[in-house]
Amino acid sequence: MAKPKIVIVGAGNVATHLAPALSFSGCGDVVQVYSRSQESASELASKIPGAEAVIDPCRIVTDADIYLISVSDDAIPAVVDALPRTDALYLHTSGSVGMEALSTLSDRYGVFYPLQTFSKGVSLDVAKVPLFIEGANDGVEAEIRKFASKLFESIYHADSETRKKMHISAVFACNFTNYLWTLAADLLSRDGLPFDVLHPLLEETLRKALVNSPAASQTGPASRGDRRVTDVHLALLDGKEREIYSLLTDCIMARRGLGR
Amino acid sequence: MAKPKIVIVGAGNVATHLAPALSFSGCGDVVQVYSRSQESASELASKIPGAEAVIDPCRIVTDADIYLISVSDDAIPAVVDALPRTDALYLHTSGSVGMEALSTLSDRYGVFYPLQTFSKGVSLDVAKVPLFIEGANDGVEAEIRKFASKLFESIYHADSETRKKMHISAVFACNFTNYLWTLAADLLSRDGLPFDVLHPLLEETLRKALVNSPAASQTGPASRGDRRVTDVHLALLDGKEREIYSLLTDCIMARRGLGR
Repeated sequence: MAKPKIVIVGAGNVATHLAPALSFSGCGDVVQVYSRSQESASELASKIPGAEAVIDPCRIVTDADIYLISVSDDAIPAVVDALPRTDALYLHTSGSVGMEALSTLSDRYGVFYPLQTFSKGVSLDVAKVPLFIEGANDGVEAEIRKFASKLFESIYHADSETRKKMHISAVFACNFTNYLWTLAADLLSRDGLPFDVLHPLLEETLRKALVNSPAASQTGPASRGDRRVTDVHLALLDGKEREIYSLLTDCIMARRGLGR
Repeated sequence: MAKPKIVIVGAGNVATHLAPALSFSGCGDVVQVYSRSQESASELASKIPGAEAVIDPCRIVTDADIYLISVSDDAIPAVVDALPRTDALYLHTSGSVGMEALSTLSDRYGVFYPLQTFSKGVSLDVAKVPLFIEGANDGVEAEIRKFASKLFESIYHADSETRKKMHISAVFACNFTNYLWTLAADLLSRDGLPFDVLHPLLEETLRKALVNSPAASQTGPASRGDRRVTDVHLALLDGKEREIYSLLTDCIMARRGLGR
């Protein structure tokens, strides 16, 4: 499979990073970018030499070697209905959707799951992203690995169950922590303080968790069982912030055997 | 105040970082380290040239220039009772205790709050830690600033209310996020996966939050309103993990106007 022709289905956060990286690393030629939104399709296609933006699924080429489906999980069934049936390789990039969602398209299908948080407009080194793959059979999985290996430095096998668990872990570790930082920024801004004052703290918190482990790095009033402090904090919070503070404090204390 | 004599009261995570840094940066001479635990007092004192370990409060010198109290918030009242009354400067390092907790000791008292997560055995550059100070009056605050300025690069004024809010923010941003990483590590380990697979994700999550803002960097199924995914995840979780997932997902969706 030398220089496969690739159709990118979707133009969201993940596709916007994957498609140019696949093209520029020589994994293949991206010939089309399909999206329901003309603006998104055109924007992404404009970043890839030779790629055409497509919004009518009937105009999707039928002679591609790889159809890479990178749309929100909810949209996968509709996309599967709309795509041409060929003997090409069909892949999706979802952490939570089983491989079989693509089984009606071809005998050659699989999963191409990059474990990373992607935002449009924030560039990152795709080569460093751990990629988790699964193929309909060993031959297909070997094909996926060969296709990905020109770009990704770390490629692992993960079946659909493992991938789901990994995705849940990523939600806790990335999406939820980012939300807690949002709450911290809110709290500071109410006192006129910039989020910047937390930067050294955040960097050090992550550094410790990576060097040792998060479990070994836990600090703070809850882990010390310091109810005097946690009660003062709870009295200053209300609504959902209070609810989150209370739940996480109880969990940290319970883990240390410090329950009420 | 040239080379003040300092007594360090406490030998926990914060004291273990502050005391040697104050000594080696020339802020003052640490003459004693007091702790109820002989082992902790000796361990910390051994890292500071000229410092003596003390476990009997009656042996704390009365001619120090600065008494720096760095114990858990719960222990502050007992320590205040035990310390000698002198005309020295008394400081505590707590985020959540008001300055007035020290008012019975002297007319010269204040707060010396370093906003950072400290663990024994994990070295860090204390000079880069933002320091928040408050003095009983302007003269005392100027003294505290002068004392700290040989070590700390960023020194800010923060009154007790602001400091409390900052501490709450830090609990969300550091202690709670670290706990979520712990849960993520637990989830992965049940599938035999190392926490390492999340490293690039965690680094990128923090980088985005610092470069843009956490609010602008939110990604994931909850922020996309992808109930199909969040329901799959909830079905795979139970106990406190399920409760945390559910609460934080609802909060993220509500913030985006995506409530059920």
